[in-house]
Amino acid sequence: MSDTSQPGPGNLFYAQSGGVTAVINASACGVIETARQHPDRIGKVYAGRNGIIGALREELIDTSHESDSSIAALRHTPSGAFGSCRYKLKSYTENQTEYDRLIEVFRAHDIRYFLYNGGGDSQDTANKVSQLSVKRGFPITCIGIPKTVDNDLPLTDNCPGFGSVAKYVAVSIREAGLDVASMCESSTKVFVMEVMGRHAGWIAGAAGLAAEKEGDAPHIILFPEVAFDRQRFLKKVERCVKKFGYCAIVVSEGARYEDGRFLADAGGKDAFGHTQLGGVAPFIANMIREALGYKYHWAVSDYLQRAARHIASAMDVEQAYAMGKAAVDFALSGKNAVMPTIERVSNAPYQWRVGEAALSDVANVEKPMPASFIADDGMSITAEAREYFLPLIQGEDYPPYVDGLPQYASLQHRLTEKQLPDWLEV
Amino acid sequence: MSDTSQPGPGNLFYAQSGGVTAVINASACGVIETARQHPDRIGKVYAGRNGIIGALREELIDTSHESDSSIAALRHTPSGAFGSCRYKLKSYTENQTEYDRLIEVFRAHDIRYFLYNGGGDSQDTANKVSQLSVKRGFPITCIGIPKTVDNDLPLTDNCPGFGSVAKYVAVSIREAGLDVASMCESSTKVFVMEVMGRHAGWIAGAAGLAAEKEGDAPHIILFPEVAFDRQRFLKKVERCVKKFGYCAIVVSEGARYEDGRFLADAGGKDAFGHTQLGGVAPFIANMIREALGYKYHWAVSDYLQRAARHIASAMDVEQAYAMGKAAVDFALSGKNAVMPTIERVSNAPYQWRVGEAALSDVANVEKPMPASFIADDGMSITAEAREYFLPLIQGEDYPPYVDGLPQYASLQHRLTEKQLPDWLEV
Repeated sequence: MSDTSQPGPGNLFYAQSGGVTAVINASACGVIETARQHPDRIGKVYAGRNGIIGALREELIDTSHESDSSIAALRHTPSGAFGSCRYKLKSYTENQTEYDRLIEVFRAHDIRYFLYNGGGDSQDTANKVSQLSVKRGFPITCIGIPKTVDNDLPLTDNCPGFGSVAKYVAVSIREAGLDVASMCESSTKVFVMEVMGRHAGWIAGAAGLAAEKEGDAPHIILFPEVAFDRQRFLKKVERCVKKFGYCAIVVSEGARYEDGRFLADAGGKDAFGHTQLGGVAPFIANMIREALGYKYHWAVSDYLQRAARHIASAMDVEQAYAMGKAAVDFALSGKNAVMPTIERVSNAPYQWRVGEAALSDVANVEKPMPASFIADDGMSITAEAREYFLPLIQGEDYPPYVDGLPQYASLQHRLTEKQLPDWLEV
Repeated sequence: MSDTSQPGPGNLFYAQSGGVTAVINASACGVIETARQHPDRIGKVYAGRNGIIGALREELIDTSHESDSSIAALRHTPSGAFGSCRYKLKSYTENQTEYDRLIEVFRAHDIRYFLYNGGGDSQDTANKVSQLSVKRGFPITCIGIPKTVDNDLPLTDNCPGFGSVAKYVAVSIREAGLDVASMCESSTKVFVMEVMGRHAGWIAGAAGLAAEKEGDAPHIILFPEVAFDRQRFLKKVERCVKKFGYCAIVVSEGARYEDGRFLADAGGKDAFGHTQLGGVAPFIANMIREALGYKYHWAVSDYLQRAARHIASAMDVEQAYAMGKAAVDFALSGKNAVMPTIERVSNAPYQWRVGEAALSDVANVEKPMPASFIADDGMSITAEAREYFLPLIQGEDYPPYVDGLPQYASLQHRLTEKQLPDWLEV
């Protein structure tokens, strides 16, 4: 009897991959809660300890030890509750043994479903495992679950994780903008907030939602997509300060010069080649002070923005959960090597449904932000962009608080017994 | 008939001073709503446009044009809705004309109550105006309203504005800590978050609330009160990474060396005396990378922390409002040259009441954080500190949202007609 014809339920392996988000655990919650509804089809749900590394090391968290309430709490818990990793499997030709090891581990634990929650790299890995497992005589159903604050996966209208960062940055620049507005007569006139987005301006663009009428913060957005033009930028800063009394700026960490050099890197070296310490926000702020003499403040929210579950978008949480649930549904309905997607049906009212994409079409493709999202001046967003972004930040989904602090899930992380020799390569 | 014996209600002048907070407008709300309940005693409530500068320039916002609902919305609006300023009146002997001008403006607009919402400097100014107005034959009732995120006013258990920053930093380091914990196996191992507090570690200390059990973030807090010891610090970072897999650090912008130099300044110059751009967070992060080689991330939340009305402490909002209300009550009951204070009655359950302090005792005195709040290792807080901080972050007081974004008050800012010649000195 071959492994694949084993009677009874098979086990499911779930792993989180890459940079975590405020809602990736909501996807995990969707996976585990849905799997628990099908004990006839799915036995145990194992989660990779620190993502795919956990599979290679055979460190499988047995989630059956976690109570229903702990699993439910994942829905409102930021970060990767099982651990994530930045570990990209090498190409199959380069390192066949890694793929073989994965399949060996899956076989040893009767894992017949592999659900991989991550970005483009991860979908590529899941796709390869799917193909290879057939060749190895232990076919595994591989389903991707989209995740990335960068919003750069193709074939899905948006990525879970993005909506909550979008909400965080729009709320934050609105609040800080009001702060500066109230101080600008005698003190700070320029505020610069740096946001994530090394390759595309999705996050920076979403901050533009805060500006609903003329004069609202942010007044200027610096996108990676638009080559930085020092003169035009400084001119607009000056115009804003003269007109509104202050200027609130959102700058993407990926903002760059015509020749492709990041501003952050330009700021990162002084004339003697010494590494400087700041990011792009202090670089921009300092440029303004030197050219225009305005008093400035700057902020770099870094991980705070992607971890900010306290101000998550309810829509984002809902979609993240739905993607996890759909992945299990797909697996049980016999689909393979696919990823559930978010399909936008309409903008007003916003309606969406679960779609489906082949992993081979998703893998390693980056979706750029449309040029039509950036206004002619290159420093603000268009009505079309606003129409796209706005539904994604709808609703608040507050975590429970005890004693003034949000209560996030704390899991037991009990590993299942190893069946194989140690793997020493990661 | 002298001015002071005028029949009917006198007008009230309210001004916001210094750095704004998430809840200073809640105090304004308390002032205006309470004043509106006493039309027999208080005529108009004028607010200084951009604080005391508005009084000197005779730019008085007539709040009677603002609807009840606009005034109510101040309770959930961050920043200074009427504008604040960093403008300290010179000493009376240095610049008598400024004080005389204030009293002249107050007389011209029949302002008999002066409520000044600020820190120690402001209380000093209010006290002097009170004294001088008697000499000038137009006695003005002067009441201070405490405000400062720095929590450094004496004679009050805490300052409105502080509790909300405390909550923001504790929530933020908890969330970012979970993020790093989930990535540390293969990626970022150290996270550094810079918080406000140039002179005292109140805010940095409050972040310590997030660490409820061993291993919780933050693992290290760097206080202005404890001379920075590079070796001991790096040793603890290394110990945390080895024990917990990562290290989450909160550093006060006021962290300094034994000789009093700020770490931020040390980081601010390179060997050639060029100004570097970062704050203390990137400086610390870079120090760790150089010494220990860990991958790091850092955040500087800057104004985001004090403007973060979306995660304000309900207790802070309640107390800020109560201070505004009490100031009006004090004025109407014939008190003068005093400031309402927050008196802590008990910790468990937390109980507090409105107290009273003479402005002369508050003016220009900075309250340090008690040494007993800092644990023996100099890098964490004691149980006593926790007992003090915890009640101040209790409760959430979410602003209303429309279309995914918080809706903050937008006032008309209609100025009352000038009666006096222009004042050209500010």
